[in-house]
Amino acid sequence: MPKHLVSINDLSKASIEKIFDLADDIDEKLKNHQTIDLCRDKIMATMFYEPSTRTRMSFESAMYRLGGKVISSADTKATSSAAKGESLIDTIKVIQHYADVVILRHFNDGSAKLASENSLVPIISGGDGSHEHPTQTLCDLYTLRREKGKIKGLNIALCGDLRYGRTVHSLVYGLAKFGATIFTVAPDDFALPEHVERRLKSEYGTEVKKFKKFDEQLSAKDVIFMKNLKKGKAVKDDVIEENLFQPIPIEYFDAIYVTRIQMERIEGTKSRHESLMSYLVNKELLEKAKNDTIVLHPLPRRSELSYDIDKDKRAAYFKQAAYGVPVRMALIAILLGVTEDKIKMTFDKSKDCILDEKCSNHNCITQEQENVQHKFIKVEDVENTYRCFYCDSEKIVQN
Amino acid sequence: MPKHLVSINDLSKASIEKIFDLADDIDEKLKNHQTIDLCRDKIMATMFYEPSTRTRMSFESAMYRLGGKVISSADTKATSSAAKGESLIDTIKVIQHYADVVILRHFNDGSAKLASENSLVPIISGGDGSHEHPTQTLCDLYTLRREKGKIKGLNIALCGDLRYGRTVHSLVYGLAKFGATIFTVAPDDFALPEHVERRLKSEYGTEVKKFKKFDEQLSAKDVIFMKNLKKGKAVKDDVIEENLFQPIPIEYFDAIYVTRIQMERIEGTKSRHESLMSYLVNKELLEKAKNDTIVLHPLPRRSELSYDIDKDKRAAYFKQAAYGVPVRMALIAILLGVTEDKIKMTFDKSKDCILDEKCSNHNCITQEQENVQHKFIKVEDVENTYRCFYCDSEKIVQN
Amino acid sequence: MPKHLVSINDLSKASIEKIFDLADDIDEKLKNHQTIDLCRDKIMATMFYEPSTRTRMSFESAMYRLGGKVISSADTKATSSAAKGESLIDTIKVIQHYADVVILRHFNDGSAKLASENSLVPIISGGDGSHEHPTQTLCDLYTLRREKGKIKGLNIALCGDLRYGRTVHSLVYGLAKFGATIFTVAPDDFALPEHVERRLKSEYGTEVKKFKKFDEQLSAKDVIFMKNLKKGKAVKDDVIEENLFQPIPIEYFDAIYVTRIQMERIEGTKSRHESLMSYLVNKELLEKAKNDTIVLHPLPRRSELSYDIDKDKRAAYFKQAAYGVPVRMALIAILLGVTEDKIKMTFDKSKDCILDEKCSNHNCITQEQENVQHKFIKVEDVENTYRCFYCDSEKIVQN
Repeated sequence: MPKHLVSINDLSKASIEKIFDLADDIDEKLKNHQTIDLCRDKIMATMFYEPSTRTRMSFESAMYRLGGKVISSADTKATSSAAKGESLIDTIKVIQHYADVVILRHFNDGSAKLASENSLVPIISGGDGSHEHPTQTLCDLYTLRREKGKIKGLNIALCGDLRYGRTVHSLVYGLAKFGATIFTVAPDDFALPEHVERRLKSEYGTEVKKFKKFDEQLSAKDVIFMKNLKKGKAVKDDVIEENLFQPIPIEYFDAIYVTRIQMERIEGTKSRHESLMSYLVNKELLEKAKNDTIVLHPLPRRSELSYDIDKDKRAAYFKQAAYGVPVRMALIAILLGVTEDKIKMTFDKSKDCILDEKCSNHNCITQEQENVQHKFIKVEDVENTYRCFYCDSEKIVQN
Repeated sequence: MPKHLVSINDLSKASIEKIFDLADDIDEKLKNHQTIDLCRDKIMATMFYEPSTRTRMSFESAMYRLGGKVISSADTKATSSAAKGESLIDTIKVIQHYADVVILRHFNDGSAKLASENSLVPIISGGDGSHEHPTQTLCDLYTLRREKGKIKGLNIALCGDLRYGRTVHSLVYGLAKFGATIFTVAPDDFALPEHVERRLKSEYGTEVKKFKKFDEQLSAKDVIFMKNLKKGKAVKDDVIEENLFQPIPIEYFDAIYVTRIQMERIEGTKSRHESLMSYLVNKELLEKAKNDTIVLHPLPRRSELSYDIDKDKRAAYFKQAAYGVPVRMALIAILLGVTEDKIKMTFDKSKDCILDEKCSNHNCITQEQENVQHKFIKVEDVENTYRCFYCDSEKIVQN
Repeated sequence: MPKHLVSINDLSKASIEKIFDLADDIDEKLKNHQTIDLCRDKIMATMFYEPSTRTRMSFESAMYRLGGKVISSADTKATSSAAKGESLIDTIKVIQHYADVVILRHFNDGSAKLASENSLVPIISGGDGSHEHPTQTLCDLYTLRREKGKIKGLNIALCGDLRYGRTVHSLVYGLAKFGATIFTVAPDDFALPEHVERRLKSEYGTEVKKFKKFDEQLSAKDVIFMKNLKKGKAVKDDVIEENLFQPIPIEYFDAIYVTRIQMERIEGTKSRHESLMSYLVNKELLEKAKNDTIVLHPLPRRSELSYDIDKDKRAAYFKQAAYGVPVRMALIAILLGVTEDKIKMTFDKSKDCILDEKCSNHNCITQEQENVQHKFIKVEDVENTYRCFYCDSEKIVQN
């Protein structure tokens, strides 16, 4: 049976460390211009239903550096049979005969899981809707390990759009696995989804520390003004005591992970959010941070990460992009079974069950595709609550 | 002079068998993970003016499995000089210097023929308008040979859209060459074009057996109801005797070849056709078929082929897609002359003639491109009738 | 420090000749089917923000013929992070880690220069806006050298759209370097930009000879009619003496270089220009040309170059396209430093200066991208005039 990577939860901490050790070796060899020929005669297919430079091209670069070949569909939605209405399952059932490994980016949550159930060759998710982006998480964790020497015990601030940005949804599980302390800094509209928080707690015993803002000095007047703006009415002084804009000291963090507001996933209220988030991480903020705090960003950036810190040695986001090649090389090599390193995938299917229910997430692949069986997993310790087997959205089902 | 494949009629039965024998060898080697290096230092260009996954990616996979390289234009219409108004001839006259073989998919009927007349390197058609799709036919025939052991004497039902679906227009000639018996099952609006029928008869001596429906049990009431629906009036009982819904016993067939309704080629009346054709081939139908009947489909499918038969061992359409790689590898190797196997192309130009006439097919490449000479071939035994040299449409010319 | 090619002015005459000598060698080897493996283990990225067949595919073919690999973004604007609003600098800072050399085509003038300032790997311009297209110029010059034996002393007519066609903006400097005599034949609206003329004079001491028309016989009546058409009023006879339609004898030229009207860069007045330019170079014109005059065109063509001369042996434009492969192979090999041949880049930064001014060219990359420093170079001998460091547009700045 092929090994897939559709969620960071598919990999144990030990497996991730095995991938990282191989990535270290490979990076060393790349720097010494050694030829790495592990994937000679292997073909990778990149099927991208959504735009990407970074992810697609770093996968393709990785495959070529491994001596393999690439067949590429950079705009599958427009230029492939998907334009003729083909289902994802059919596409996968064909493409598995043309390639030895498939990288899939798709706009629906849970699409990678569905693809993996129908493929004879490894499926690696390159991002599925707002759900997960596991190889980005591997790069993020690898960057922490390389730049900070370890992950365990680090204080990591996640800021920006934590609701719609899929990179964060994978990352938090990875951080939890390695024992980092997770802080979130985001306005309510962009807070981490509840089901992610709950799963972090139930499966990893990790509780996220939540804040709305970094430690910027806000006068009482500022706060009242902003609240007026939001609520459209005058507020009393004691409102200032509320948690709404509670700041957190920036010098507390070992790493600040910033994400882009996924404007394409949000309707309306654009300018308000944009201004709220604008230049969240900039020179002024970094002045108050520690000397060895690193700043990460999955890129591309918008206004949430200021260009004025690019030359600061703590800006690690371009390194983070560069590490994408050795990390993906290691992952591909291991999943294709061309190295000594074997990993065990940790997902188990023992708990999945079929309900006579639809997933309630409108962007779930099970909503989009005909003829897909809806499946759920019972959420432990939470009454009547089930998690979609594909997109991880939770649903309360009264028996 | 380079060898091109623009029509299945370019290949004799013997040539096709030579390609299939090589495909058998290659498939064996692929299964044993042997490196095949026949096309080292060769470059293929894939020029796709219409969307495709299957065809483009199977060609590219084939070339890589042969040790060759690929330069790809997956959306030539939008991203190439065609967007600046370049003629197809000019594009070919340039690209022939960049590649050793060109795979062309183009929206105009006859485009592959025109390209082949202007190229120093082999042109392989990946589909031209509603005209032909010869490599799909090679895969279809190869699947029959592999799955049924032979083609000669098989009873083959072709159903779905036989008018606009180009795959069928190539396939019928191939089946005729090999001596299969051809049945068509399609409503009038989607019947095989007359010129195809006529050519089958005159060149191959093959007469197609035509039906409108499989052997579904229709009550007299059903038939009357459907006719009422269609004609908008009451009908007499004797109408039931008419040919309109004459059924054919499904157990008669060795293979059922289903095609997609080419919705993008049809205006209006969409819902009517869709419902008429909906689930043409499904579990109920297959229950009445033979145990060793196989179901083929060039894919992608719509509602004409039900998902509920995917797990039936008679469903051979994903195998059919898989065979695309060894078949195309064999074809490329032979056309590039890198194997011992030589084939002779059967088209002859002796009969082409120039008339002071335009082709009457509005989608013919000669209508679209400036500066292309209209050419025709006299249709034997049919008075005043000429066939377009490029798109094969017939035209009556009064002298 | 990496070597980039963003302008033909980056290369001395000696460097260009070194590239051409290597191209000659390579072309010989290609003809003898020798494997050239100079770029084994090297990856090229092609980043195309504008449509292209010729340039992208010839670069990719070149890289494959060198034994290298290619990661390709054929429609970067739509399918990459650019669609998410990523800046060019960010894209380059990422892609430099995935590839060993980057080919960039971008719609903004000066984009290649900006990219080169931010890249650790060689950037080769594949065309930037209306600014330059240096590798096209290398192909043009190489074609002249191959077909005419030399460039020095040739009389070259440049006709068509000399204002918006970027190929000409690079070519004139190349011709000037090699000592050809430059004639321009174009209506006022498509004349060579002033800053190009001025730079030719100041840096190369070359004065362009300007004409509006080839030597077609125009009666006085014709001229008056056309002027009436243009000015909407009657004109006196002495107008005929004016320079407006002064013809130039066609037999004077060793080569005629025709360019396409860049309709996509012009608003309105389309039909007028099209008819004016229509069939500028055709059979009738060539009848009056010398036996060994060659006709060049960067392609794709529109109506400015008639199909009726394609079979004339003087039509050299498809050869010109073919030479693109060996020339680009030589260039890539030299810039990547994988050959003995070393070249020195001639641009010097000594004169650039920062003004508190914006570039006045609305299509300049500095206008489009946030956070780019505007920089200028003082134009020698012209008072108060500065040239944009990126797009070469001139600006008068009152101190």
